Amino acid sequence: MLIVLHHWATEKDVAQIKKIIARHGLRPVAIPGAERTAVGVVGNQGYIDDTPFRDLKAIYEIIHVTKPYKLVSRDFHPADTVVKLGRSVKVGGKSPLLMVAGPCAIEGREQIFKTARFLKKLGVPVLRAGAYKPRTSPHSFQGMRDEGLRLLDEVRKEVGILVVTEVMSPEHVGLVAKHVDILQIGARNMQNYDLLNEVGRTSKPVVLKRGLSATVEEWLSSAEYILLAGNPNVILCERGIRTFETATRNTSDLSIIPLVKGISHLPVIFDPSHATGKRALVPPMAL
Amino acid sequence: MLIVLHHWATEKDVAQIKKIIARHGLRPVAIPGAERTAVGVVGNQGYIDDTPFRDLKAIYEIIHVTKPYKLVSRDFHPADTVVKLGRSVKVGGKSPLLMVAGPCAIEGREQIFKTARFLKKLGVPVLRAGAYKPRTSPHSFQGMRDEGLRLLDEVRKEVGILVVTEVMSPEHVGLVAKHVDILQIGARNMQNYDLLNEVGRTSKPVVLKRGLSATVEEWLSSAEYILLAGNPNVILCERGIRTFETATRNTSDLSIIPLVKGISHLPVIFDPSHATGKRALVPPMAL
Amino acid sequence: MLIVLHHWATEKDVAQIKKIIARHGLRPVAIPGAERTAVGVVGNQGYIDDTPFRDLKAIYEIIHVTKPYKLVSRDFHPADTVVKLGRSVKVGGKSPLLMVAGPCAIEGREQIFKTARFLKKLGVPVLRAGAYKPRTSPHSFQGMRDEGLRLLDEVRKEVGILVVTEVMSPEHVGLVAKHVDILQIGARNMQNYDLLNEVGRTSKPVVLKRGLSATVEEWLSSAEYILLAGNPNVILCERGIRTFETATRNTSDLSIIPLVKGISHLPVIFDPSHATGKRALVPPMAL
Amino acid sequence: MLIVLHHWATEKDVAQIKKIIARHGLRPVAIPGAERTAVGVVGNQGYIDDTPFRDLKAIYEIIHVTKPYKLVSRDFHPADTVVKLGRSVKVGGKSPLLMVAGPCAIEGREQIFKTARFLKKLGVPVLRAGAYKPRTSPHSFQGMRDEGLRLLDEVRKEVGILVVTEVMSPEHVGLVAKHVDILQIGARNMQNYDLLNEVGRTSKPVVLKRGLSATVEEWLSSAEYILLAGNPNVILCERGIRTFETATRNTSDLSIIPLVKGISHLPVIFDPSHATGKRALVPPMAL
Repeated sequence: MLIVLHHWATEKDVAQIKKIIARHGLRPVAIPGAERTAVGVVGNQGYIDDTPFRDLKAIYEIIHVTKPYKLVSRDFHPADTVVKLGRSVKVGGKSPLLMVAGPCAIEGREQIFKTARFLKKLGVPVLRAGAYKPRTSPHSFQGMRDEGLRLLDEVRKEVGILVVTEVMSPEHVGLVAKHVDILQIGARNMQNYDLLNEVGRTSKPVVLKRGLSATVEEWLSSAEYILLAGNPNVILCERGIRTFETATRNTSDLSIIPLVKGISHLPVIFDPSHATGKRALVPPMAL
Repeated sequence: MLIVLHHWATEKDVAQIKKIIARHGLRPVAIPGAERTAVGVVGNQGYIDDTPFRDLKAIYEIIHVTKPYKLVSRDFHPADTVVKLGRSVKVGGKSPLLMVAGPCAIEGREQIFKTARFLKKLGVPVLRAGAYKPRTSPHSFQGMRDEGLRLLDEVRKEVGILVVTEVMSPEHVGLVAKHVDILQIGARNMQNYDLLNEVGRTSKPVVLKRGLSATVEEWLSSAEYILLAGNPNVILCERGIRTFETATRNTSDLSIIPLVKGISHLPVIFDPSHATGKRALVPPMAL
Repeated sequence: MLIVLHHWATEKDVAQIKKIIARHGLRPVAIPGAERTAVGVVGNQGYIDDTPFRDLKAIYEIIHVTKPYKLVSRDFHPADTVVKLGRSVKVGGKSPLLMVAGPCAIEGREQIFKTARFLKKLGVPVLRAGAYKPRTSPHSFQGMRDEGLRLLDEVRKEVGILVVTEVMSPEHVGLVAKHVDILQIGARNMQNYDLLNEVGRTSKPVVLKRGLSATVEEWLSSAEYILLAGNPNVILCERGIRTFETATRNTSDLSIIPLVKGISHLPVIFDPSHATGKRALVPPMAL
Repeated sequence: MLIVLHHWATEKDVAQIKKIIARHGLRPVAIPGAERTAVGVVGNQGYIDDTPFRDLKAIYEIIHVTKPYKLVSRDFHPADTVVKLGRSVKVGGKSPLLMVAGPCAIEGREQIFKTARFLKKLGVPVLRAGAYKPRTSPHSFQGMRDEGLRLLDEVRKEVGILVVTEVMSPEHVGLVAKHVDILQIGARNMQNYDLLNEVGRTSKPVVLKRGLSATVEEWLSSAEYILLAGNPNVILCERGIRTFETATRNTSDLSIIPLVKGISHLPVIFDPSHATGKRALVPPMAL
């Protein structure tokens, strides 16, 4: 952490800050500049809470250098994590590109069996389909819920395809985990910490979608919750962020993928249909 | 809903779209333009799901005119809603400005009692303090949780002040509602629909904070969940949105407040401390 | 244009709006809905100015359907535009991928000759290098300016490579056009309309970079200025937009490229170095 | 400037960075951390160009502490700047709130004289009206241009009111400055550096509007251009930024005003009509 002082800060202000740092068992390093002084904080094991400093008037800016995550970082786990899905499918590291496809929502038995058989024939190993649907409006269709879940269980057993579905509430995690192969945390629930902890207590693979307005740091910190709770099988899924541009549904910067792969050992996948929101743009972005 | 067609769309395309509209029990109105044709959809009772149209190639753009909320709208409830907090405090309509103050998190008995007594003396009717804290990093302090809740219950009874605290999980709603006067849904949980439904099943006043990247439409739609579940006592709380500007923590446009008051009958309050994230900016924004 | 009325709008309001539309030589079409009435405007040749309507209280929302550009649109020019650079290089349509490379700023004769010869050897047909540099701070290096321009002219003649450089002011356009093969409008000047008009009066190819916060519609409208002024040789260049995410310098959504190619016949290129701002991310994004 | 290294950086990497810093006449200070090392740069007079460091692989992040502006900062000019408009009107410091009003564009003699006389009667000291209009589409009305300018000159002399108008091109600055009292730089031209330099060479008061996607730092840096060119009479004008929210035209965070007043000595005004884009929201935001 770097604490930058106002240009008018006095020796006394610097001394006070150093004292607070020392009181927290850390070591202050003064960095005098031409215009202003900064005080570096060293000796910390992880992210430092800046609350004790927030109210000091002499402070101009607090800059965090240490990140709020640790287990997901390559600093602590240099090799790529490979997540096993079912018996033979793998994602991450040098595994082949994972294809996932399927309808937004399960609408009925015929639809889901037809889709699953079609994907199976194409060699797509994972079917995605929503049983519980998070909807902006309570007046919209909320999914087939428990009945959809049972259909997913049937389809995966009969057709022999892996199934991923979204789980929206901590109390549903146990039930959903029984019926499908892979759990999904949707973008709106990326910072639903009780839900993250709950899927962290299972050993099922978890697809963690990036929140609509989540920074990379926040996304990785949410993955950290799952790993810290005991489940290392996290797959990050980029699906675009919300920006002023409305020509596409979300703005998805693919350069985030190599960036995240540089910071973290977790596998990263991309959702081209939610990212663009336009059918014609899916094929060019999926390549 | 207005369906705008590509300039190359044919009579046949228009006919097909009209047929789909009619199949859903609605009435199509063609609006031929100089460059392209649009088809309006009339006769709907509420928000129309555009899924049946999404895959038609001839469609250039779908524009929703009806909103995804109804109960929160002034169209259906023209008079201001006044929410009663405790026995004598009110918010909304012509009620006096509501003051809410308190620490981010409960840190101990002494801190919370001292604060409550100080606010009581100043005439501030509501104390806010976090028992469960949503934190980006799992390595940060997560709040005093159940113990904090008990402290809040003690302090409100002994000091005679109303208490509001955040609830983060559907399964905690019952417990939290027993110990405090007002429930708060935090910005990260604004679209946690199971949580919204659960607080909607109580009759406690609910402060619904605007999500970090929520549009006004989404914010009001989340309030709609609570009203639809049976609880009309919703207080909207603006706290700024995430933008490219990092000079303040969030960007809070106060013009949103008269705008929302024009659309909805619900009371709207403003959180100047979370909005700015800087102590010195709270007094000028609180005026 | 679609004019949506408040639910409380009266027959008289509708009549007034229809009258204003008619007064402007256009035809109104009423679209009565369950909750509110909308009035469509038909018969217009292009973008309609909504000023006459802005002050009518009965209006809830004005939705533009016609776009503010025409010449750049595929509606009016279905075939791909191919822009000729120098005698043999082409961009657009089925031309091979255009490679452009070079330093941000010209720093001296040796640097620019060495770079140009290296690119020539690699088969890269276009050298980019800044003579005039737009800089956030007036205290930063502003480029070698006129002297840099003369170096570019020398290098292109001696090495036999095409040269592109940014022009920042209408009065420089003539001079810059004499010394280089391709003009560039930088992101900060995308809406500098006098500059757009001035490059529109030349016949030089123009690379028009997307503004930091420009919508696709605004970007295409800026290209429209150049075409309308008489120069059809515009190459659009995506370089990312400004969002809340600071992990990369800009957020660049590649799906914008197929989207723009669907709307416009102009060639579109991508700048992976300005988009990411990180050296390690350039190769994965350039593929 | 603080240079943060990757956790795997070696002693040799640190030594190399220190050498580069020293070569630029600055002093390096190593700040060893638990996880990674940082190197502070001290002894600089102003903003440091980070180009020499950008290509070093061992660098994880570069954090700038010094700002890209100096003359506009309170660090170098603690007292409020008061800008004199005409003979008796002042803005800044303890001057009374400045009212500016008028139409977006000059549309004719009658309109502008009527408005000016009305404002004069109300005691509004400054009339704003556009002669040159920056328009997204070249097909929209571009203003009455030179003729509008002559009308402004007439109106200010006959009615006795100060006049402000936008100048869009460096070559127009001389002409516009002859006809009006105050120059305005519009949001789209906030980073048109040749224009900033040109108005900086006059002594006319300049209203500098904040760019649609400009950070506070960039806005102040643009003001720095004008001051550095010799004109200290700059008035900053906040008008909102572009965000994902489309319920209002722009998002305008009023907390930016006390924030900027803390950093800079320049006067700051607010434009409630461009900020909200909705007539009904102007009065509540203007208070």
